[in-house]
Amino acid sequence: MSPIRLALVGLGKIARDQHLPAIAATDGIELVAVASRNAALDGVAHFATLADLLASREAFDAVALCTPPQGRHDLAALALSAGKHVLLEKPPGATVSELGPLVAAAEVSGRTLFATWHSRFAPAVEPARAFLAEVAPRAVTITWKEDVRVWHPGQRWIWEPGGLGVFDPGINALSILTAILARPVFVTGAELSFPSNCAAPIAATLDLADAGGLKVRADLDFLQTGPQSWDIAVDTDRGTLLIAQGGAQLTLDGQVLCAQPEAEYRTIYKHFVGLVAQGRSDVDLAPLQLVADAFLLGRRVSVAPFHD
Amino acid sequence: MSPIRLALVGLGKIARDQHLPAIAATDGIELVAVASRNAALDGVAHFATLADLLASREAFDAVALCTPPQGRHDLAALALSAGKHVLLEKPPGATVSELGPLVAAAEVSGRTLFATWHSRFAPAVEPARAFLAEVAPRAVTITWKEDVRVWHPGQRWIWEPGGLGVFDPGINALSILTAILARPVFVTGAELSFPSNCAAPIAATLDLADAGGLKVRADLDFLQTGPQSWDIAVDTDRGTLLIAQGGAQLTLDGQVLCAQPEAEYRTIYKHFVGLVAQGRSDVDLAPLQLVADAFLLGRRVSVAPFHD
Repeated sequence: MSPIRLALVGLGKIARDQHLPAIAATDGIELVAVASRNAALDGVAHFATLADLLASREAFDAVALCTPPQGRHDLAALALSAGKHVLLEKPPGATVSELGPLVAAAEVSGRTLFATWHSRFAPAVEPARAFLAEVAPRAVTITWKEDVRVWHPGQRWIWEPGGLGVFDPGINALSILTAILARPVFVTGAELSFPSNCAAPIAATLDLADAGGLKVRADLDFLQTGPQSWDIAVDTDRGTLLIAQGGAQLTLDGQVLCAQPEAEYRTIYKHFVGLVAQGRSDVDLAPLQLVADAFLLGRRVSVAPFHD
Repeated sequence: MSPIRLALVGLGKIARDQHLPAIAATDGIELVAVASRNAALDGVAHFATLADLLASREAFDAVALCTPPQGRHDLAALALSAGKHVLLEKPPGATVSELGPLVAAAEVSGRTLFATWHSRFAPAVEPARAFLAEVAPRAVTITWKEDVRVWHPGQRWIWEPGGLGVFDPGINALSILTAILARPVFVTGAELSFPSNCAAPIAATLDLADAGGLKVRADLDFLQTGPQSWDIAVDTDRGTLLIAQGGAQLTLDGQVLCAQPEAEYRTIYKHFVGLVAQGRSDVDLAPLQLVADAFLLGRRVSVAPFHD
C-alpha cells in the first residue's frame, strides 16, 4: 500500500517539536504539504490555508490539524467534506457537541477521524491500566503544575474562550485517568481561578468520583515555577502506584515498574496509519466532557490578571 | 398490570404545581409515598429522605426526583441500586458525565431511567418537528426572557454551582430546539453574564450551528419584567414558523397551526408508564450538553449582584 500523503495544518510549536519528527519516523505516512499563514518548510509544498491547499492541484489523503482548538471544527469539517482523513491534536475541539457531526461525516464518507490524546501513548499508561485492572484503586490524586510562561510562551489562544487555560495541560492528566481506570468517572465539584483579564482559568481544583465511590482529586496550576509536576498517584492495597513525569515513568512505592523511552507521537502516527488501513475512526470525548462539566459545575474565583 | 407505585422525592413548587396533578390524572401509576425534609402530603406515607424511605417497609416501584439538580445523581444512583425505576426532573443532573453511570446502572438492573424534558411534550413541538422535516429551516431565533423573581422565588439553588441560572429555563428552549431540528446543533459562541454574587449566569446569548450551516441565535434573560417571552422563531421558505408561549402555540406567519391544551406533565407520566411496561429507558443529554458547551466556550461578563 502506498503511504498516506499527509498535509499538516498549523506549523507552531507542537507541530515542529512533535509532529514533524514523528511523521518522519513513521512507516506508511509521508508529509506532502503544509498549510500555515506564518511559516513554511523547506522542500514541502506550502499554502496559506487548508482552503487554498484544497483548491490547488496538490494530491493528498489526510490532514493533521495542529492549529488552536477554536478553529479545529471548521477545518475538520472542510477536510472531511473533501474526502480527507483527519487527525486532530488535543483537545479535539472547542466544545463536545461539535464533534458529533464530524464523527457522522467521517462515517458517511468512509474516512478516518482520529481524536488524539498524546499522553495516553506515554509508556506508563498501558502498564498502569493493566495493574489497575487487577488491583482496585482506593483513591487518586492528580498534581499537574507547570509554568505556562515556559511551556506556552505567547500562546494567547489559551486564554481565549475555548482555549481551556490550565486545562490545556490538565486535559492530558484526564486523558490518562480515563484510560487507566476500569470505570468511568464524573465531576462532583470544581473551583476555577480566572485571571481578571482572561477568559480561561489559570488554576483549578477538581473532584471526581466513579459509581463505586472512588474519589479523585486533581490540583492544576499554570504558575508553577521551580520543579514541575505531572503526576497521578493511585492509592491501592498493593501500595502507591505513581504515574510520574506525564506518563514517562511508573513506580510502585518508589520501585520503578517501567521506564521506557517516550514515543507518544510516533505511536499516534502508527495508530493513525492503522486506523486508515482498517477504515476506522477513534474518537473518545471523555476527557473533554470532564472539562466541560468542570466549567458547568465549577465555582469561579477571580484572581490577579495574567501577563505573559 | 397493577399500577406503578411511585414515591415523589422533593415536594417543592414543581412537584405541587405539575407532578401531583399529572400523577393523579394518569392511568397505571399511583402516588404511595413522599420523601421531603420540608413538607408532607395528607394521606400519603411520608419520610424525610429517600434513604429513610428505602429503609422502611413501604413498598414502591419507582421514584420521581423533583429535588434541585445538584443532588439528583446520588438520589438516582441510590434508587437504581435499590431496584427502583427513576424519573428525573430536568435538567437530569449537574453534569453530563454523571449520567453515564446511571444509564449503565439502569441497563444492568433492567430498570427504567427517564430523563424528562417537559417542554418537549408541549403541543406545538411535534407539529413543528413534522413541519421542519418537510421544509428546511433557514435561521432560528430563540427569545427566552422571564422574571426569575416571579417564577423562581427564593430558589437559591439556581444561583449555586450546577444550578444553571438563566439556563434553568433556557434549557427548555434547547430541549425543544433539539427535538424539532432534523440535524444536531452545536455551540459556536456564547456570552454569559454572571451577577457578581452568583455562581450561575443571569443572562446569556448563545450562537449555535449545524453541519449544514444553519445558524441559531438564543437570547436568554432572567430579569424580564412586563411581557414574558418563551419563543422560538424559525425562518423558512414557507414563512416564519413561531413556537410561542414555551410551546403552547404554533403559528406560521401569524396563522395558528395548533393551539391544543397544554398537557406536558400528563404526557410525561404516560410516557413513563409506557417505558416501564416496555423495560426501556429514555435519556437524551443533548440539551444539557449544549449548556455545558456554552459554559466551556462562553465568554464571562460580570454584572450587578442579584438579590431575590
